[in-house]
Amino acid sequence: MSYENILYAVEDRIATITLNRPDIFNAMGPVMMNEIIAALDEADRDDAVRAVVVTGAGKGFCGGADLSKGADVFDKDKKIEGREARGPRRDDGSFDYSDESARDGGGKLALRIYAMLKPVIGAINGAGVGIGASMLLPMDIRIASEKGRLGFVYARRGIVFECCSSWFLPRIVGIAKTLEWSFSGRVLSAQELLDAGLVSQVVAPDALMPTAYAIAREIADQTAPVSIALMRQMAWQSLGMSHPMEAHRIESRGITTRGSSPDAREGVASFVEKRLPDFACTVSADMPDYFPWWDEPSYS
Amino acid sequence: MSYENILYAVEDRIATITLNRPDIFNAMGPVMMNEIIAALDEADRDDAVRAVVVTGAGKGFCGGADLSKGADVFDKDKKIEGREARGPRRDDGSFDYSDESARDGGGKLALRIYAMLKPVIGAINGAGVGIGASMLLPMDIRIASEKGRLGFVYARRGIVFECCSSWFLPRIVGIAKTLEWSFSGRVLSAQELLDAGLVSQVVAPDALMPTAYAIAREIADQTAPVSIALMRQMAWQSLGMSHPMEAHRIESRGITTRGSSPDAREGVASFVEKRLPDFACTVSADMPDYFPWWDEPSYS
Amino acid sequence: MSYENILYAVEDRIATITLNRPDIFNAMGPVMMNEIIAALDEADRDDAVRAVVVTGAGKGFCGGADLSKGADVFDKDKKIEGREARGPRRDDGSFDYSDESARDGGGKLALRIYAMLKPVIGAINGAGVGIGASMLLPMDIRIASEKGRLGFVYARRGIVFECCSSWFLPRIVGIAKTLEWSFSGRVLSAQELLDAGLVSQVVAPDALMPTAYAIAREIADQTAPVSIALMRQMAWQSLGMSHPMEAHRIESRGITTRGSSPDAREGVASFVEKRLPDFACTVSADMPDYFPWWDEPSYS
Repeated sequence: MSYENILYAVEDRIATITLNRPDIFNAMGPVMMNEIIAALDEADRDDAVRAVVVTGAGKGFCGGADLSKGADVFDKDKKIEGREARGPRRDDGSFDYSDESARDGGGKLALRIYAMLKPVIGAINGAGVGIGASMLLPMDIRIASEKGRLGFVYARRGIVFECCSSWFLPRIVGIAKTLEWSFSGRVLSAQELLDAGLVSQVVAPDALMPTAYAIAREIADQTAPVSIALMRQMAWQSLGMSHPMEAHRIESRGITTRGSSPDAREGVASFVEKRLPDFACTVSADMPDYFPWWDEPSYS
Repeated sequence: MSYENILYAVEDRIATITLNRPDIFNAMGPVMMNEIIAALDEADRDDAVRAVVVTGAGKGFCGGADLSKGADVFDKDKKIEGREARGPRRDDGSFDYSDESARDGGGKLALRIYAMLKPVIGAINGAGVGIGASMLLPMDIRIASEKGRLGFVYARRGIVFECCSSWFLPRIVGIAKTLEWSFSGRVLSAQELLDAGLVSQVVAPDALMPTAYAIAREIADQTAPVSIALMRQMAWQSLGMSHPMEAHRIESRGITTRGSSPDAREGVASFVEKRLPDFACTVSADMPDYFPWWDEPSYS
Repeated sequence: MSYENILYAVEDRIATITLNRPDIFNAMGPVMMNEIIAALDEADRDDAVRAVVVTGAGKGFCGGADLSKGADVFDKDKKIEGREARGPRRDDGSFDYSDESARDGGGKLALRIYAMLKPVIGAINGAGVGIGASMLLPMDIRIASEKGRLGFVYARRGIVFECCSSWFLPRIVGIAKTLEWSFSGRVLSAQELLDAGLVSQVVAPDALMPTAYAIAREIADQTAPVSIALMRQMAWQSLGMSHPMEAHRIESRGITTRGSSPDAREGVASFVEKRLPDFACTVSADMPDYFPWWDEPSYS
């Protein structure tokens, strides 16, 4: 596929998605958002991809909504490039919240990332604001350049949490930091992000992409792709489980099926023989019959 | 309103509630508890209030139950000042747990704080023990003086978690610290509270109130009150959501309604024009029609 | 009782369970697992036990499954010492996930620890890998020797989360560390475990057991056993509660019953008199009538 607002490349089993409108700090519009979703679909379908890295071209990561489009940028009633002119209004002017057009676009992106079968690594090269900050939260691992910084600025713009950030942010940095940061709305330094655990490392700008690729490389070299695909969903979905018995039921299915798989034999053998594993099972062909074990919720 | 055991003052859009029985380290009795709840009601009703700061007069923050009332202080069967002499006993002497008198008083206070539309900032000036520690947990932001310290002492007094602390404490400091601290029951230093993320800052005693007011001031100056009221509930309530789709439904309502509000126009305009915003919408008049979006649970 | 693969001893109100196959780094097999469960049962029944310490004999804590048994060690279809030769297969060869033999053994151990009435303290003396890492998560407090290290290696072995670790790990170290650690599969140093809050202290090897016993001693000396038994369940189970009202209902029962108990009188009196408490109520005789307040979920 070819993309307008992003770059997509696969090398040595790692896909890279680069937000690529550097002249406007990679501001997010409907085109870019749909392209990111399409690229994630592509990465998930491709067994040659074992991990995905997301970063921004130029100085910024993603400046959020393109405010150069004016003060109506968040108003669904107003025509903005790439978008219908009319929001989810009923004939009497009231909102129809169940209408598809009432959906927060960022939320669709967040839910797509949440559903990934491959690990997603965010490499924060510069400022991320609004959706440019929120979209990082459903990713699995985040690292930042010393120049990285993020702003959860919703309340300063007169709007609210978007991109499922009200769900993800407390689960990553805790409820106390979530409230402190989102009530303030100020832009946070890479060090603050590190201290709160939102990023796992802060590195020099030159070291950002090599570090991201080293994390992806370890996954690609050392781990079984079917294990990773299952474990990604097991970890995220366990957050909604009220009792460990619910996890036990799913883990038992996983241990039973994967324990008798060629991957388990290869995992043990390669460890005992002190060599890199060569896992044969693929996400496209070998996901177990109990997957998916959940009912995917719909919007309305 | 006038209060006996607390002080309530509003200045420059910030309300301050001061626990004010310094001779007994602001020990909590039924009068003080009801007055705090009344003051929170007042702050929530008043559009001139954008944030609430809670602190203690004198050397202590709040010493918990007034143990000078004797060893029966936790016994609902015994008459204690301001309380009925008889607890939730049935005729045969067994407990009727559904009876209103069986409710933990601290829990009522915690639930009132949880329901706030305005941010609540705890400024811990000295020791907080028992309910004097627990009552801080439903607040949004906590800071401490170097002299601040808290004790989750329930197991040393032969009782259990109160004030909904079994719900709030693990969500703020994690389950590991919750168990470590509450099984020990010892009093924790300001530094320990900072390391665990229970407070966001530790400052010199003289800097405590200025720091609390600076946090409140940033909220009052920079953010939209309707955004903050919605986001406070969105963040806390998201903790009970098992899937990000649930947050997406609420966020979509928020982005749809607030995105087309005057506040969103002002938020974008003030940012582009590099000036402080002047948000016109108020909590008393402009909460969106989908608020509240939840059914408030009842006790019994 | 006498055990083959573990040691069990009670001294001065503290039980110690020592994994005791030091020649094979305390590798976990069915015998050891069943013995740990039996020892936990014994500790829970015995009012003379106020806390349990779990550690490993020799250089390792627990090396996980015994890989010397070959590459089929995770395969339930293959005969391994102490285990049936045939897994949960239906006649047509497909898996019957509801069958008892489909259960992850580690999960049974994790659920037993989760259900404890006494605090469990993990003293990590050396390497813990696979189930040797996972089994520590349902414990309440963990400390490590400087030589302690843990590996959540599932994806490197071609399997998935086990021992309810997909539920416990995110609740102890957060979802971000959970994903980072389990996608990498590498072995983590004691310092990394400390930074993430998985252990509360790292000490010199010689200081490990004295530190563990000091934590247990404080619980035994200072706190009421019925309070601790109730609070352990209140804290863990609150993680599955969506609203603080649910905690308020249980806390109210606790405050009502324990507030009028001899333990509450002794707790207040000993504090006022500045002496150690002597709590009379026991877990075997004095658990309140509302305990257990939950329905225990079954596997299938």
